[in-house]
Amino acid sequence: MNGAESLVRTLIASGIDTCFANPGTSEMHFVAALDRVSGMRCVLGLFEGVVSGAADGYARMADKPAATLLHLGPGLGNALANLHNARKAGTPIVNIVGDHATTHRRYDAPLTADVEGVARPMSAWVHTSMDAKSVARDGAEAVAAALSPPGCVATLILPADTAWNESDGPASAVAPKQSAKVSDEAIRQAAAHLRSGEPTLLLVGGRALRAKPLELASRIAQETGAKLMAPTSNARIERGAGRVAIDRIFYPIGQALEQLAPYKRAVIIGTQNPVAFFAYPGKPSLVLPPSCEVQVLAEPGNDLLDTLERLCDELGARSQAPQLQAGSRPELPRGSLTLDAIAAAVAALVPENAILVDESINSGGAIYPFTQGAPAHDWLQLTGGSIGIGLPLATGAAVACPDRRVVALQADGSGMYTLQALWTQAREKLDVTTIIFANRAYASLDIELRNVGASQPGQVALDMLDLSRPDLDWVKMAEGMGVEAARADTVERLIDLLRGSFARRGPFLIEVPC
Amino acid sequence: MNGAESLVRTLIASGIDTCFANPGTSEMHFVAALDRVSGMRCVLGLFEGVVSGAADGYARMADKPAATLLHLGPGLGNALANLHNARKAGTPIVNIVGDHATTHRRYDAPLTADVEGVARPMSAWVHTSMDAKSVARDGAEAVAAALSPPGCVATLILPADTAWNESDGPASAVAPKQSAKVSDEAIRQAAAHLRSGEPTLLLVGGRALRAKPLELASRIAQETGAKLMAPTSNARIERGAGRVAIDRIFYPIGQALEQLAPYKRAVIIGTQNPVAFFAYPGKPSLVLPPSCEVQVLAEPGNDLLDTLERLCDELGARSQAPQLQAGSRPELPRGSLTLDAIAAAVAALVPENAILVDESINSGGAIYPFTQGAPAHDWLQLTGGSIGIGLPLATGAAVACPDRRVVALQADGSGMYTLQALWTQAREKLDVTTIIFANRAYASLDIELRNVGASQPGQVALDMLDLSRPDLDWVKMAEGMGVEAARADTVERLIDLLRGSFARRGPFLIEVPC
Repeated sequence: MNGAESLVRTLIASGIDTCFANPGTSEMHFVAALDRVSGMRCVLGLFEGVVSGAADGYARMADKPAATLLHLGPGLGNALANLHNARKAGTPIVNIVGDHATTHRRYDAPLTADVEGVARPMSAWVHTSMDAKSVARDGAEAVAAALSPPGCVATLILPADTAWNESDGPASAVAPKQSAKVSDEAIRQAAAHLRSGEPTLLLVGGRALRAKPLELASRIAQETGAKLMAPTSNARIERGAGRVAIDRIFYPIGQALEQLAPYKRAVIIGTQNPVAFFAYPGKPSLVLPPSCEVQVLAEPGNDLLDTLERLCDELGARSQAPQLQAGSRPELPRGSLTLDAIAAAVAALVPENAILVDESINSGGAIYPFTQGAPAHDWLQLTGGSIGIGLPLATGAAVACPDRRVVALQADGSGMYTLQALWTQAREKLDVTTIIFANRAYASLDIELRNVGASQPGQVALDMLDLSRPDLDWVKMAEGMGVEAARADTVERLIDLLRGSFARRGPFLIEVPC
Repeated sequence: MNGAESLVRTLIASGIDTCFANPGTSEMHFVAALDRVSGMRCVLGLFEGVVSGAADGYARMADKPAATLLHLGPGLGNALANLHNARKAGTPIVNIVGDHATTHRRYDAPLTADVEGVARPMSAWVHTSMDAKSVARDGAEAVAAALSPPGCVATLILPADTAWNESDGPASAVAPKQSAKVSDEAIRQAAAHLRSGEPTLLLVGGRALRAKPLELASRIAQETGAKLMAPTSNARIERGAGRVAIDRIFYPIGQALEQLAPYKRAVIIGTQNPVAFFAYPGKPSLVLPPSCEVQVLAEPGNDLLDTLERLCDELGARSQAPQLQAGSRPELPRGSLTLDAIAAAVAALVPENAILVDESINSGGAIYPFTQGAPAHDWLQLTGGSIGIGLPLATGAAVACPDRRVVALQADGSGMYTLQALWTQAREKLDVTTIIFANRAYASLDIELRNVGASQPGQVALDMLDLSRPDLDWVKMAEGMGVEAARADTVERLIDLLRGSFARRGPFLIEVPC
């Protein structure tokens, strides 16, 4: 058994059964091994940003890592932007990156690059296998590293000769680190904040945004009068009817400052002291008031369920009923095809147990509030601000959850970065309904340009924000990649298309002119 | 004048008048400054790999760097793969990468990443501006660094506050390093090799593949009987009728070893001791015979024209006439639409002074020999093995040379990585004719898979190499990005489409089923 096969068998033994791949020559031994070993589903992406974004979406929904298979430094480079998002989401991913044979690297062949250097900025763990006999053990360590709480990007670099030489067979799984519990003292301190009688924010993020911990957080809020809130960008929120509804901190700095101005104290669980997305001249970086007493009770890697349980007990809040959202959908919209009408249509029609993937940037803001009372669903967001994750994220989520409808809310500018994901959706026949908000602009940048003082931008600047001339035709692009698609120019047409897509299997794309 | 404007003015003063851009919020001051300063052409790319690949194509043809404008670590990450190719081509590029304000970076906002870490693997020069008053000088240094022979990737990171704060105005251009001349001793040694009477290879690369130095190399070969050859992958070769024809080292390791087996000595100018693209079990990394006496006379950064002139003089070869290619086009093909027929059609019809961009991988191999006697043209290749440069490279070359037809020979699998370049071609109305070789496979990988011993690959492995199910429709994808396109299923249709595209302005895409 060669090193590649020992690695594939080790990954499977470690619980990894899905590999998003864009392989090249250096990875051919790994690919060949896939034929000899059963138990690994391999999903091809036609660009590495699709591969890494899909691995993120998969792990967010499957709660276990996928592997990626990438081709040397440049292939990993193409994956970096979405690995950045995964890193910010606390998503576990195991990257397998082929490299030149150890004997070949010193000759500076065309594809030679500093693969470890490319990996390091977005990886919590980086290792290069030195020989075929250590590959299996390295693979087991990579999985354990990826599973380090809250979830990490681990990158294992596999020189071609470590894949093709004879190994000692697969390695056993390595137990990952456990998430640490917070101290009793910290719990008591948080309880004191929450009992202070002053306006207090209970900010929860990360895995605390799942249904069960959110119920605990809601009990605490009910008991103490604290305001429960989530960060602006979150990997996954379990929400909808029968679940705890939670507001998020606003993205625009001015609105966020206003929103958080009332709070004298803040207890933070599973996220960091909230920070503005960007800095602006004369505006603070931290969005809680400077006078607010902030306690980060639990980092994302702490045991968040345990933290909330103990805090609940400390406060005697177990007897409180969590505030659960009643089921309520908006009426089907009529009239103009506005952003609110699109939001209402989605909220009115989205199937139960759907997965909503939001990279709608400026266009989809109304969908989050409109879907608050829709049937229970998951809400996945862009976590690292690196646009171009929506279509891959939806792809990976659909691979993880083959019995659930995925609805991708996709801005057009962001969608263009990784549109190749549509092909993977078609090949894998994934149940993804994509709504493209075709405003034909980097609309958020237009706002930002005016924010920086260019109140009357000229043509050169405006050309950099404008996606028209020519207009993108998403229907043709989707069809070109084998995904059925149509444009909705009226609300009625949008409703028909949504109904049609939700009623049958496979991917579908709807372009809306907003 | 703020830092951003001081930088734009400095870049222009340093000779940079073209910026390929995919900006975000952190770059809005730079974008706003473009409205206040004339002399910088700004070209929008809808993905950063388009931006960096276009900057490479531009500089290869303009013989001066373009700037890129990129958005923080992830934006730079998306640009890396084609920066890798640029680095291997010796192409000068000045990356301007926005970052969070210096005061904001410590808060770990969503987009925060180690931008310098992302830059370093593909950049010869990396610097982060510390304040608005140093931005202009840093910009001038970046241009000088990019112009260091043979040409480098220089990355200047621009925290947002260094862009928005008040500067001291623009800086003067900084003189770049000059290319070093090789020693007289080295010239004499090379002459001795060439005079040895043994079979000798004269391998020339880099800037020595332009018409004038190639004529000198040809005189030397005529005088000494040496075999003149070029590396497998080259940034730019000036060739065609009236120029020196030059063979390249074969890509497949077996063929390369056979091709180079006869040589007892090798004199190398402007490139390195040739190395196999990949390592293979039991095959050598270096492709010249181990017994061959190899002299690297001049590195790519040396003064190659001077080297060839002095070597010519040392050998008394000035009086030799260079061996110039006679003009001769193949007849227009008839019959089946084979790869040879496509090659013949291109060679028969390509306009004078065209720029041929070759990322055809397995499909376009016949076009190089078929076009040997076509009217004078440039030949641009993938230099770093990182696929996905063809469409961006063609885009940048067309921006640099608005009066020349660019013909992109594009494999389908590689084309998918950066297909967004088509939109930029449409917006800028660039004279690019793209031929997509739609073999619907990573065909080179199929060969490689069999090379690694998987003689009977199974379905899992084959699925990773196969781009069908669904088939990509390049006509629809191109039209979706505003580029006129058609499929050629017969030779006659291909000829019609080529003639039509060559006869009028603007981009056109032709899909051929090969």
